[in-house]
Amino acid sequence: MIIVMEANTDQKHIDEVIKKIKSLGYSPHIIKGIERTIIGAVGDEREKTRLQSLESMSGVESVVPILKPHKLASRQVRTEGSTISVNKNVKVGAKEFIVMAGPCSVESEKQIVETAKAVKASGAKVLRGGAFKPRTSPYSFQGLEEEGLKLLALAREETGLPFVTEVMNPREVDLVAKYTDVIQIGARNVQNFSLLKEIGRLKKPILLKRGMMTTIQEFLMSAEYVMSEGNHQVILCERGIRTFETATRNTLDISCIPVLKNETHLPIIIDPSHATGHWQFINPMSKASAAAGADGLMIEVHIKPEESFSDGAQTLKPSKFDRLMKELRPFVEAAGKAL
Amino acid sequence: MIIVMEANTDQKHIDEVIKKIKSLGYSPHIIKGIERTIIGAVGDEREKTRLQSLESMSGVESVVPILKPHKLASRQVRTEGSTISVNKNVKVGAKEFIVMAGPCSVESEKQIVETAKAVKASGAKVLRGGAFKPRTSPYSFQGLEEEGLKLLALAREETGLPFVTEVMNPREVDLVAKYTDVIQIGARNVQNFSLLKEIGRLKKPILLKRGMMTTIQEFLMSAEYVMSEGNHQVILCERGIRTFETATRNTLDISCIPVLKNETHLPIIIDPSHATGHWQFINPMSKASAAAGADGLMIEVHIKPEESFSDGAQTLKPSKFDRLMKELRPFVEAAGKAL
Amino acid sequence: MIIVMEANTDQKHIDEVIKKIKSLGYSPHIIKGIERTIIGAVGDEREKTRLQSLESMSGVESVVPILKPHKLASRQVRTEGSTISVNKNVKVGAKEFIVMAGPCSVESEKQIVETAKAVKASGAKVLRGGAFKPRTSPYSFQGLEEEGLKLLALAREETGLPFVTEVMNPREVDLVAKYTDVIQIGARNVQNFSLLKEIGRLKKPILLKRGMMTTIQEFLMSAEYVMSEGNHQVILCERGIRTFETATRNTLDISCIPVLKNETHLPIIIDPSHATGHWQFINPMSKASAAAGADGLMIEVHIKPEESFSDGAQTLKPSKFDRLMKELRPFVEAAGKAL
Amino acid sequence: MIIVMEANTDQKHIDEVIKKIKSLGYSPHIIKGIERTIIGAVGDEREKTRLQSLESMSGVESVVPILKPHKLASRQVRTEGSTISVNKNVKVGAKEFIVMAGPCSVESEKQIVETAKAVKASGAKVLRGGAFKPRTSPYSFQGLEEEGLKLLALAREETGLPFVTEVMNPREVDLVAKYTDVIQIGARNVQNFSLLKEIGRLKKPILLKRGMMTTIQEFLMSAEYVMSEGNHQVILCERGIRTFETATRNTLDISCIPVLKNETHLPIIIDPSHATGHWQFINPMSKASAAAGADGLMIEVHIKPEESFSDGAQTLKPSKFDRLMKELRPFVEAAGKAL
Repeated sequence: MIIVMEANTDQKHIDEVIKKIKSLGYSPHIIKGIERTIIGAVGDEREKTRLQSLESMSGVESVVPILKPHKLASRQVRTEGSTISVNKNVKVGAKEFIVMAGPCSVESEKQIVETAKAVKASGAKVLRGGAFKPRTSPYSFQGLEEEGLKLLALAREETGLPFVTEVMNPREVDLVAKYTDVIQIGARNVQNFSLLKEIGRLKKPILLKRGMMTTIQEFLMSAEYVMSEGNHQVILCERGIRTFETATRNTLDISCIPVLKNETHLPIIIDPSHATGHWQFINPMSKASAAAGADGLMIEVHIKPEESFSDGAQTLKPSKFDRLMKELRPFVEAAGKAL
Repeated sequence: MIIVMEANTDQKHIDEVIKKIKSLGYSPHIIKGIERTIIGAVGDEREKTRLQSLESMSGVESVVPILKPHKLASRQVRTEGSTISVNKNVKVGAKEFIVMAGPCSVESEKQIVETAKAVKASGAKVLRGGAFKPRTSPYSFQGLEEEGLKLLALAREETGLPFVTEVMNPREVDLVAKYTDVIQIGARNVQNFSLLKEIGRLKKPILLKRGMMTTIQEFLMSAEYVMSEGNHQVILCERGIRTFETATRNTLDISCIPVLKNETHLPIIIDPSHATGHWQFINPMSKASAAAGADGLMIEVHIKPEESFSDGAQTLKPSKFDRLMKELRPFVEAAGKAL
Repeated sequence: MIIVMEANTDQKHIDEVIKKIKSLGYSPHIIKGIERTIIGAVGDEREKTRLQSLESMSGVESVVPILKPHKLASRQVRTEGSTISVNKNVKVGAKEFIVMAGPCSVESEKQIVETAKAVKASGAKVLRGGAFKPRTSPYSFQGLEEEGLKLLALAREETGLPFVTEVMNPREVDLVAKYTDVIQIGARNVQNFSLLKEIGRLKKPILLKRGMMTTIQEFLMSAEYVMSEGNHQVILCERGIRTFETATRNTLDISCIPVLKNETHLPIIIDPSHATGHWQFINPMSKASAAAGADGLMIEVHIKPEESFSDGAQTLKPSKFDRLMKELRPFVEAAGKAL
Repeated sequence: MIIVMEANTDQKHIDEVIKKIKSLGYSPHIIKGIERTIIGAVGDEREKTRLQSLESMSGVESVVPILKPHKLASRQVRTEGSTISVNKNVKVGAKEFIVMAGPCSVESEKQIVETAKAVKASGAKVLRGGAFKPRTSPYSFQGLEEEGLKLLALAREETGLPFVTEVMNPREVDLVAKYTDVIQIGARNVQNFSLLKEIGRLKKPILLKRGMMTTIQEFLMSAEYVMSEGNHQVILCERGIRTFETATRNTLDISCIPVLKNETHLPIIIDPSHATGHWQFINPMSKASAAAGADGLMIEVHIKPEESFSDGAQTLKPSKFDRLMKELRPFVEAAGKAL
């Protein structure tokens, strides 16, 4: 931590801050500048009371943190990238570029099984589909719940594809975990710390979506919540952040791929469907994600998008998904991965 | 809903959209413009499948919603403002301007009882204090949990002040409800729909904080979640939204007060402590909130801010809080309320 | 400047950075932390080459500036607030709360003269009106240009009100300055540095609008551009920033008032018309601005808003403006100003 | 335009709006919904007074525009993409993927000539370099001005590379145009309408940078300003938008590539240097841009980044630029372009 004192502060205030820093177990280092004094506080600020509250002391202008607050998720802890096994064949973060595809919500046996067959035929390795749906309105379709989980399991049986599905309520974690291969935490729950602790006790891979309001630092701290409970199998997923631009539903922050690759050993996949909100933009954004070094994609596919209960506008038909998978290959390969 | 067709679309595509609109139970009204056709779909889009998925049909450029999606929270449903009773003396949304004050976290008996006495002496009507804390880092102080609830109850006994405290986990709702007068849903849980449904079954007032990246429409939909389960006692609380500006921790969206007053009958209070993140700015922002028509404030006060476990930089000392309460009165009165 | 080195960097890289810091005329102070080394560089970074480019050196993780980059606009340079004289009667930043009012654009003699009379009768001290209009579309009304300036001068003659009007082109600065009392720089030109330098050579007061995505630091640096050319008569004007919220046209950043009062001696006025974009919200936002300590307001008023060439939706009728002025008084007085 | 009336408005208000719509030359079409009436106004809203000011009429809730406001830049006007000739060999928007590279600022003959030779050797087709620099601080290096233009011309002579450089002041347009091949309008001047009109009268290609606060619609309207003056040779350039995320300097909005390809026939290039602000992220973001369908790139390269007067942290050394160009080829080719 660096404590920046106000210009021309009294020595008395500086002495009080130094005393306080020592009492909290840090070593103070004073630098007298031309206009103001700054004080470096040496010590691991992740282990102790944070020094941020020094800002309320007289004469203190600001407190600037230096250390990154995450540990287990950090690239410093583990230099090479982590590989997360979805099942014995499918690994996220390894050589293979993993595409997860399927409908927004599970709606019926026919819908989920046919979609699963279609996406498998085109090369998807994981099926996605929601059984518990976080909808902005209480009057919207809320998902088939356990019935949806059963239909996903049936689709897995028929196709061999493992699946990922969302859990929203700590009370339902065990139920969802009983069926699914990968547990998804949705964007709106990225800082639902009770839920993060709960799934941190599982032995299943977690797909953690970045919130539309979450900085990369906060996103990694949410991964850290899961990991600090013992579950290190976390796959990060960027799905667009909220900005002033309205031409797309959210703004896909593709730069987060190299930033995350720099900061963490966890694998990163991209969801261009929720990010853009329009099916026309999914194809180029998928290619851009592969080119920037993502480990995979998550894409909404539905056998009849115009009849889907939710998110139809951003959903690909199987034929368009198939074309995307074919066009994607050279980009994936140029990025050093295999599809 | 208005469906905007692409310029120069084939009549065939227009016919298909019309057929679809009818099949979903809406009446289509066609307007042929100079360049493009638009189709109005008349019907209550809150009762039926949303038409948004029409966007995936050929020839459709965009789908524009017309009706506001909230019902129970809407000003149309209830013309006069709602009044929420915290206890038999304290009402939010009535003539009296209600100030809630206290520490970020409950830390000890001495700290909470002394702070409660101090804020009561200055005119606060409700005590605030966190027992379960949503912290960005798993390594930060997470709250005293049930012990904290007991200390809040003790402070209530000693001062007569009712209190508000946060709940984060559906599993802990009953525990928190057993002790508290008002249940707070924090900014990070504003779209934790499982939690919203859970507290919607209670008979206690809810203080619902706006998320830092929640639109006003989404915020009202979250209130609607609580109300649709039967609990209409919702107090809205703005606490700053995330923007590009870093001079303050968040940007306090004071304009939301007249916008919300226009759209909903629910009362609105403002939290300038979290919004600004610096104690120096709480005084002017409190006055501005009262002037803009807020029903009350929520302010962080701690007997020793520089020793607080969290949020010290944005916390007032009792003496500064007392000065604020004195200075606030003419603004509250000019706005037609009493303090 | 603080140079933060990567964790476990080679001593060689640290030595190279130290050498570089010295060669640029700063004194390096090294703090060895538990995990990483940080280097304080003492010296006035506003006078010399900025050290930001050290970020491209090996082993450097980031460079953190400490000093605020503005000088002439800074509160440290001048402890008491500046007062800017519009004419011999009207001073911005003094005891009197100054309201500037008038139409978005000058449209006709009748329109501007009648509006000027109306706003004067209600207590406005300065007339506003655009002759050169920055319009998003080249096909929109671009203003009456010099004819508009003449009409503003006529309205001044008839009412005695000084006026403020915008200049957009360095070539037109002399023309506009010949007529106007205060020169306005619009939000879109806040970082038009050529224009800022040009008006910095004038001896007229400047009303500098914050851009809709300008940080407070950048805003002050734009004021610094004007002041560094010799013109210290700068009035700052907040008019809303761009955020994700769409219920209002922009988000009025009222917190900027105390932040600016803390950082600069320049006076600050608020434009709630452009910020909110809806006439219904101007009244409460005007009161909130006065309560937060603003030095004045700038408000759009038109004798017939529904016939105005631009910005009708956010424009008050004279009767509503009159009511606002009456209701505003107790808030202005409670804030220690006079209306 | 769609005019949405408030729920349960009086017929009288509806009649007044209809009358007003007719008086402005539009045809009204009324749709009576269950709860509210909406009125479609048919007519070309780009040719006439905009209807937005109807929002100030009684009973009107909102006015929703339907037509896109741009014409000349629109894909509807010109179905195939435009090709802009920089000189007789270099065309932007054609088969070849065009990389523009060079330093932020021209600093010396040696610096610009050596950098030009290096970027040419690696495959760049256009040299970039600033002679007039828009700097946030008036105390920062402001560019070599005409001397810088002469050095750019010298570098062109030595290498054969055409160059692009920025103009900021309408008074300097002729001077800059005398030397340069392509005129750049910087992000801060994207809505400097006086400057846009001025360069619209030239017969030179324009490189128009998106502002960090500019929506895609506004960006196209700025292109429309240039085109409406007669100069149709506009190259669009995305350089990052301002968001809440601080891990990168701005957020590169790669999704704008397919959005722009959909809306306009103008070519689009990407500047990953300013967008990310860190040299490490330029390589992956360049690949992502090519993959998403960009027509080219603009990259900062300096022979000694750590000695550059500005933007060192985001500047590539020639060796890193060379590696980027080699790695870029397969991505460019997979996207159907040539490098």
